Amino acid sequence: MPADTTKKTLLVFSGDFDRALAAFTIANGAAAMGDDVTMFFAFWGLNILRRPGKVAAQKDLVQAAFARLMPRGVERLRLSRMNFCGVGATLMKRVMRRRNVMSLQEMLDTAKEQGVKLLACTMSMGVMGFSENELIDGVEFAGVAAYLGEADEANVNLFI
Amino acid sequence: MPADTTKKTLLVFSGDFDRALAAFTIANGAAAMGDDVTMFFAFWGLNILRRPGKVAAQKDLVQAAFARLMPRGVERLRLSRMNFCGVGATLMKRVMRRRNVMSLQEMLDTAKEQGVKLLACTMSMGVMGFSENELIDGVEFAGVAAYLGEADEANVNLFI
Amino acid sequence: MPADTTKKTLLVFSGDFDRALAAFTIANGAAAMGDDVTMFFAFWGLNILRRPGKVAAQKDLVQAAFARLMPRGVERLRLSRMNFCGVGATLMKRVMRRRNVMSLQEMLDTAKEQGVKLLACTMSMGVMGFSENELIDGVEFAGVAAYLGEADEANVNLFI
Repeated sequence: MPADTTKKTLLVFSGDFDRALAAFTIANGAAAMGDDVTMFFAFWGLNILRRPGKVAAQKDLVQAAFARLMPRGVERLRLSRMNFCGVGATLMKRVMRRRNVMSLQEMLDTAKEQGVKLLACTMSMGVMGFSENELIDGVEFAGVAAYLGEADEANVNLFI
Repeated sequence: MPADTTKKTLLVFSGDFDRALAAFTIANGAAAMGDDVTMFFAFWGLNILRRPGKVAAQKDLVQAAFARLMPRGVERLRLSRMNFCGVGATLMKRVMRRRNVMSLQEMLDTAKEQGVKLLACTMSMGVMGFSENELIDGVEFAGVAAYLGEADEANVNLFI
Repeated sequence: MPADTTKKTLLVFSGDFDRALAAFTIANGAAAMGDDVTMFFAFWGLNILRRPGKVAAQKDLVQAAFARLMPRGVERLRLSRMNFCGVGATLMKRVMRRRNVMSLQEMLDTAKEQGVKLLACTMSMGVMGFSENELIDGVEFAGVAAYLGEADEANVNLFI
């Protein structure tokens, strides 16, 4: 990589709308400046990567209940504060549209286009009961060792 | 900067009393040790920088509702856990006074005196509907690119 | 330290089951790869280090109330989302057992065995009203300056 290229990693643990917004804003900003960016989605953060529709996947009762209660993909995420059963998130999206701020879906698409690496934490997938086909295309699967390897090469590492 | 000076950045995303406390404790600790410190306040974190009184500002209905429901400044922040409608935060402040721990307001003043750079995220201000005159004096306004520039120069970067 | 050894610090601010899980997974992963790892437990994170049983300790009314309401040790931690009065955490532990993921207690024991340094933030202990004998064995006590000293030596620093 050229001398002015540095690397950033974002461990996206949260699946909240607002924190996802922060994560993609940072990721896309850094990628636009020429940095290598890796996002490692763990735990609730996996919800950001879920396909919006229902996907056939073998789950036990607990996993099925969790999967049903958790949001499916960027359009369904909730605000961590003042969500008011979704009203808060909806209002915020409207404000964003009016202010010409990209939607979360557009941010995700832009991240992919800019070559941001999207990794899904395999241990979290096991605990949450997600199979690979439940996540969107373009996601790679990795463990904590891979994340740490990426973080070792980066000069900015955030846990979001 | 001298060889033993390093830089720290804190991205203060949360507007919770307890996380603000952590952020300013780290910022002031690092500044006291001679480090350059930049705090970048985004999203809920902007509430920490709000002026306590009511400020005339043009807002649409949604922004006005959000502004009214969110805490105005350090004295009004809530605990992320066990807030109990403000009782928890009040009790914690009392304990802090008795243990001779600085109040959040004193920590903020100290940060300014020590030259900690306070940046407010302009994109977040747009989404939240905050105008510059609603935030306290001594705050600068910056975007994610400025934050990333600071983070690139720092050896410790935290997302709080 | 050998050239391929690097250092990591984790500031564990949260006392949620899921975030503790993430913290210990990262800590143990890094330690297994030969890194020096320091975990600095502050605020709610101190609950992770509490002894499970009741410990005699002088507390005022507020501190006693807080101590009673907060979870005592790894076995009592709650999920940050979908806890449902403990049902969520219990179900998640069952899934983890079935998937052969270590329990949090085993992760904590492994961290100790691997030489992960466990520091408890003394300022937080004062505010929360915890005395040293309320925390588990093997914990050292340190302030923010010590944390910053460790972070200065590390190449990855996360706030969890």
